[in-house]
Amino acid sequence: MDFELTEEQRAFADTAEQFARERLAPMAAEWDEKHEFPKSVLREAGELGFMSLYTPEEQGGLGLSRLDSSIVFEKLAMGCTSTAAFMTIHNMVTWMIGSFGSEEIKQQYCPKLITAEWLGSYCLTEPNAGSDAAALTTSAKLTDEGYVLNGSKVFISGAGDTDVLVVMARTGEPGAKGVSAFVVPANANGISYGRREPKMGWNSQPTRSITFDNVLVEKSNLLGEEGQGFIFAMKGLDGGRINIATCSVGTAQHALEQATQYMQERKQFGKPIADFQALQFKLADMATELVAARQMVRLAASKLDNGDTQATTYCAMAKRFATDIGFKVCDQALQIHGGYGYIREYPLERHFRDVRVHQILEGTNEIMRLIIARRLLTDGLQIF
Amino acid sequence: MDFELTEEQRAFADTAEQFARERLAPMAAEWDEKHEFPKSVLREAGELGFMSLYTPEEQGGLGLSRLDSSIVFEKLAMGCTSTAAFMTIHNMVTWMIGSFGSEEIKQQYCPKLITAEWLGSYCLTEPNAGSDAAALTTSAKLTDEGYVLNGSKVFISGAGDTDVLVVMARTGEPGAKGVSAFVVPANANGISYGRREPKMGWNSQPTRSITFDNVLVEKSNLLGEEGQGFIFAMKGLDGGRINIATCSVGTAQHALEQATQYMQERKQFGKPIADFQALQFKLADMATELVAARQMVRLAASKLDNGDTQATTYCAMAKRFATDIGFKVCDQALQIHGGYGYIREYPLERHFRDVRVHQILEGTNEIMRLIIARRLLTDGLQIF
Amino acid sequence: MDFELTEEQRAFADTAEQFARERLAPMAAEWDEKHEFPKSVLREAGELGFMSLYTPEEQGGLGLSRLDSSIVFEKLAMGCTSTAAFMTIHNMVTWMIGSFGSEEIKQQYCPKLITAEWLGSYCLTEPNAGSDAAALTTSAKLTDEGYVLNGSKVFISGAGDTDVLVVMARTGEPGAKGVSAFVVPANANGISYGRREPKMGWNSQPTRSITFDNVLVEKSNLLGEEGQGFIFAMKGLDGGRINIATCSVGTAQHALEQATQYMQERKQFGKPIADFQALQFKLADMATELVAARQMVRLAASKLDNGDTQATTYCAMAKRFATDIGFKVCDQALQIHGGYGYIREYPLERHFRDVRVHQILEGTNEIMRLIIARRLLTDGLQIF
Amino acid sequence: MDFELTEEQRAFADTAEQFARERLAPMAAEWDEKHEFPKSVLREAGELGFMSLYTPEEQGGLGLSRLDSSIVFEKLAMGCTSTAAFMTIHNMVTWMIGSFGSEEIKQQYCPKLITAEWLGSYCLTEPNAGSDAAALTTSAKLTDEGYVLNGSKVFISGAGDTDVLVVMARTGEPGAKGVSAFVVPANANGISYGRREPKMGWNSQPTRSITFDNVLVEKSNLLGEEGQGFIFAMKGLDGGRINIATCSVGTAQHALEQATQYMQERKQFGKPIADFQALQFKLADMATELVAARQMVRLAASKLDNGDTQATTYCAMAKRFATDIGFKVCDQALQIHGGYGYIREYPLERHFRDVRVHQILEGTNEIMRLIIARRLLTDGLQIF
Repeated sequence: MDFELTEEQRAFADTAEQFARERLAPMAAEWDEKHEFPKSVLREAGELGFMSLYTPEEQGGLGLSRLDSSIVFEKLAMGCTSTAAFMTIHNMVTWMIGSFGSEEIKQQYCPKLITAEWLGSYCLTEPNAGSDAAALTTSAKLTDEGYVLNGSKVFISGAGDTDVLVVMARTGEPGAKGVSAFVVPANANGISYGRREPKMGWNSQPTRSITFDNVLVEKSNLLGEEGQGFIFAMKGLDGGRINIATCSVGTAQHALEQATQYMQERKQFGKPIADFQALQFKLADMATELVAARQMVRLAASKLDNGDTQATTYCAMAKRFATDIGFKVCDQALQIHGGYGYIREYPLERHFRDVRVHQILEGTNEIMRLIIARRLLTDGLQIF
Repeated sequence: MDFELTEEQRAFADTAEQFARERLAPMAAEWDEKHEFPKSVLREAGELGFMSLYTPEEQGGLGLSRLDSSIVFEKLAMGCTSTAAFMTIHNMVTWMIGSFGSEEIKQQYCPKLITAEWLGSYCLTEPNAGSDAAALTTSAKLTDEGYVLNGSKVFISGAGDTDVLVVMARTGEPGAKGVSAFVVPANANGISYGRREPKMGWNSQPTRSITFDNVLVEKSNLLGEEGQGFIFAMKGLDGGRINIATCSVGTAQHALEQATQYMQERKQFGKPIADFQALQFKLADMATELVAARQMVRLAASKLDNGDTQATTYCAMAKRFATDIGFKVCDQALQIHGGYGYIREYPLERHFRDVRVHQILEGTNEIMRLIIARRLLTDGLQIF
Repeated sequence: MDFELTEEQRAFADTAEQFARERLAPMAAEWDEKHEFPKSVLREAGELGFMSLYTPEEQGGLGLSRLDSSIVFEKLAMGCTSTAAFMTIHNMVTWMIGSFGSEEIKQQYCPKLITAEWLGSYCLTEPNAGSDAAALTTSAKLTDEGYVLNGSKVFISGAGDTDVLVVMARTGEPGAKGVSAFVVPANANGISYGRREPKMGWNSQPTRSITFDNVLVEKSNLLGEEGQGFIFAMKGLDGGRINIATCSVGTAQHALEQATQYMQERKQFGKPIADFQALQFKLADMATELVAARQMVRLAASKLDNGDTQATTYCAMAKRFATDIGFKVCDQALQIHGGYGYIREYPLERHFRDVRVHQILEGTNEIMRLIIARRLLTDGLQIF
Repeated sequence: MDFELTEEQRAFADTAEQFARERLAPMAAEWDEKHEFPKSVLREAGELGFMSLYTPEEQGGLGLSRLDSSIVFEKLAMGCTSTAAFMTIHNMVTWMIGSFGSEEIKQQYCPKLITAEWLGSYCLTEPNAGSDAAALTTSAKLTDEGYVLNGSKVFISGAGDTDVLVVMARTGEPGAKGVSAFVVPANANGISYGRREPKMGWNSQPTRSITFDNVLVEKSNLLGEEGQGFIFAMKGLDGGRINIATCSVGTAQHALEQATQYMQERKQFGKPIADFQALQFKLADMATELVAARQMVRLAASKLDNGDTQATTYCAMAKRFATDIGFKVCDQALQIHGGYGYIREYPLERHFRDVRVHQILEGTNEIMRLIIARRLLTDGLQIF
């Protein structure tokens, strides 16, 4: 058992931290305010490999483990939560195409996704199947010309501003086994996008609904085989949960550091507020729980990397725990800032808005509890 | 002991509820989005007496008790948290002038404040004395022409868009006894306003800093006598804490109702999410704690009305408890809405942003704990 | 609306407080340690009317309201949680017989129950129907000689040391409508008692299971009519929940007072621990939440007194909230005492053990949430 | 980074688990009830090496790391919290003598401590210096015959039934630097023991105060050099905190397993209570937080093993977090058992009583927060 980063992991972390500090943090408030999707900065991230961290090396990705990737994403999230979160989604799309696509598809899409010349969106959620992926109704019918997609998706990150969609659609029977995954060009005929959703946070990435009206794609755009879509989606979700949990940890780490600094500088009643014991205790709890959250994320990532049969449970635990703690830490960091925590001059209110959605996305934290409980009450959780 | 509303209280509540539903709720999202200060609607509120609920009847106010006023404010907050909160501040200003002003000042200001033809701002907080009111440094020097004010205030609700300021300034010795209260025309020479603070919420009321640069006011603009300012401020704070706690209760009540309705309508896994026991439990706890919060507010208001010597402690308890619970309920109502809680199409994310500041304003909830503990450890809290 | 005690209520409270201080508190630790059921002290309580607070005056009770009774019970619980809790159970039994018994039964039982010459046990819970009262299987068959009872009950307070049992048994169809209530002499032929349960707390009252093996009682021992038992039980539970919640409030009040005093006396790092801000904050929160808990109990009692159609919901809320807060306050008071909180020299560890069962009894707090949620999702909760 | 146990660690864990299941668990309830100190079973533990897990191999210990030891202690705590906790204390005493004693002392004491022929007590806490170790007043004066000890200690585990004491006493200046550590035979002249403290839990180990009245020990009984005692004590505390945190984790793991099983077996409303979603959610949170607690303990142990400069902070975090979570899990497992959780037939109420003291011992969790905050606000916590 070993809890320390390797030299290589530290090097990745340092590079990511520098990028976050220099290229993300200075712009994050403006992207939030102006609802700006920073495509050029995403391309810079692509140059450093951040847009394909765990895409196989054969396809041009860095081929990192999920654990390594989490270390990188955490640092990126310290610069801009919303942008880092989009990067994790793009990574998922790139990984999915690079892992399950036909050779043709891989060659067509991966090079441009890796550099972020093209950006990707992941299309799973539907209006009436928020947490019930197996119930999705978007259909893909096989015809002589290819698959014809009909249906609609909601809350799609990047939608309307990205180039490639990975779409889960039903090709067969009801339930999980009838779902397949497709690569769809974002500008294909028959695709229309809804209005840009006005969200509380995550404003540097646009969110829109997508309608598929007889959208035709070639047969080769099917990822893997028919009926494998739900398996891919679940694998994607395990990783997606680690990613989103990681974004909470990174943001909370930044909030904690801001709060620590503020406590040392801000004076009240004639002394720095760092001298007030009740605030010290609050800070201690924030740090303690955040360390625990980070460990949970790394543990789950490691389980996923090892192909552990309990990995899905650990990913659900990490997502539930780290996104709850992440929000709590940001909330308390805001409180420590008093009135200054509530205004946009400081990053706290943005962190507070941004991380809040992590408790909802990638399966709400209520769904996480269901997943965990089901395991506990069937096979049990083996503890080592 | 009697926990039921009187007929008269129900009548007030009904009127307020109707006003909230018809005049506030339909516009609240737009005021938030456009950062619009709804002056004309505030005047309508004035016509109904809502801008001078506890201002003495002799000055044209309704002369209600704090408890009665809380019942009204709660309903108003169900329509628009931010606007109702501003109304409570205006009420405090009007009450303070109507109670402690000279006859001349009363006659000059009250009629127009009561109708909301003029709006009022309350100027206590300073950059370096957020929670330490006794340390304020804005000075008021008595000269032959009157008092000359110098200094600055921050986080002033309505500032720049209101007509009348009640300003706490130092006329004498350091500490609480050297503070006096003044009525100052908002457009007096030497007053300048900072930029409109970009806040996370409370967007229907502008917030600005104010700088006083040799601002001259007549002697008669002094409220009460020199050195009484801190007493007025503390009285104002007791009431202000009940008011802000009330706004949390009203908003949370609305959020709870929205969540209940959503649970009945939204389906997942083939049935209304109201059928899921874990959500039922969440809803039950929200309702239970909200009922407790409301009782705490009413208890404190009643203590204040009775001139109870422990009133300040009860007001601090009510403020701490109700604003914490209020936020928690709004947070959970948002969570119950899933992704829809995070977008502006629903009011949840606005409630979440709006009530968050109540845990900070009027003395942070940390300051409330200090006030409560001090009492417990000195005179003790007599429980009946 | 009025939150103050009347003169009469204060007088009752004072008498109860004196009795608690003089007759209960000095012996509570010993009763706990020796598992002693203090029958003679209960008789003294009977002389003061505490064993029949809300039994109708016509039957010799004090005829107080539930709210008045709660004020008395709270003070008694400050002396000995476990004994006060038994007194509330005896009160319920006496009230039920005094309210629903035939004249004959009333005359036979009430005089001796009121003086506590006889003690009563309430027999509802069964091994397989902890929270599901409508599923009870103890049967009462009508024969020519009277009703013949068969079945068993568990967790019966006082059982084996009391004189009168009120027993819920099935006389008819499955479900709630087939349940009837009986008065049964505790020494009737066919009754056998299990071993005295070794409990974590509540040690001044014995708890045993009871087996009914062809126990014959006269027809007149039926309370009310056949099929009314569940209605009586539910009425009893509403009151029982207020009572148990009250015992939590009283115990927690005592714990809070102990903790306050200890903080003022105990020194660490050269000063009283009352000077440590983090402990002050803890104390403030304990007091605040306890005040809220007390208000919830009184609100619910008042609703029950008024015959409010929402009374059951309010009683469930009060029980859930006050027993949770009560435990939390006792837990934190123990923590403030450090190592001294963990040993029997101080009352904290006893309070901690005693109140813990209140979260389980009279319907677990999980059942309370179900009751509350059901109301919210059907008729809704009207808030005034 | 690697989160998996090695083969060797699994082997140790298995042995410990078997010992816990066969030799501790079957007797734990009886030891608790009869307040029995199971010396013979401790000797059996000694044969397996469990009484000297991290004592250097040169002195006959197993020479395991703190991390390895934690893995073993966790399993032991699953059998009997109180006994396992005493074993950790004995381990600390044995390690301290085996690491810092003179050769003479090592040879005299270690062989018998390792086999548990002799048992050890650790004497740090004093009546007026619960959390303020540097303020201790027990004195050790150097005379021609040796050191003469005077003073008193409280809350000493095993005292009166053990053979060897490690005593912290002041040999020099006030403050931390004047403290030295001594090995003292438990039956030395001048030592007297107080009454056996009646505690809420931890009943399989006696706790007494000790008075030293001119107790003479030889010079060679000094551990290390004069003035090093506080350093040893702090090292001991770091390890002690991991140990006690570990005992919370092990106990909570047992409670979780009991609760899971109970939910599958217990029926209410016609189905296993495992079918109730709200209970499922509770179980999921228990498991999640317990996994996080375990990770925190292992992380801290690893930091201590690595001689990390931040180890003390991590140990404080682990102690605070794991003992809070441990108690919470036991509390909820008790609640899931309903009335059966409150009686001694099930182990839940014992777990609940036993783990409660872990939040107090080895520095209260409030002191942990101070330690953590101090680090955050001075050197900061470097996160990798």
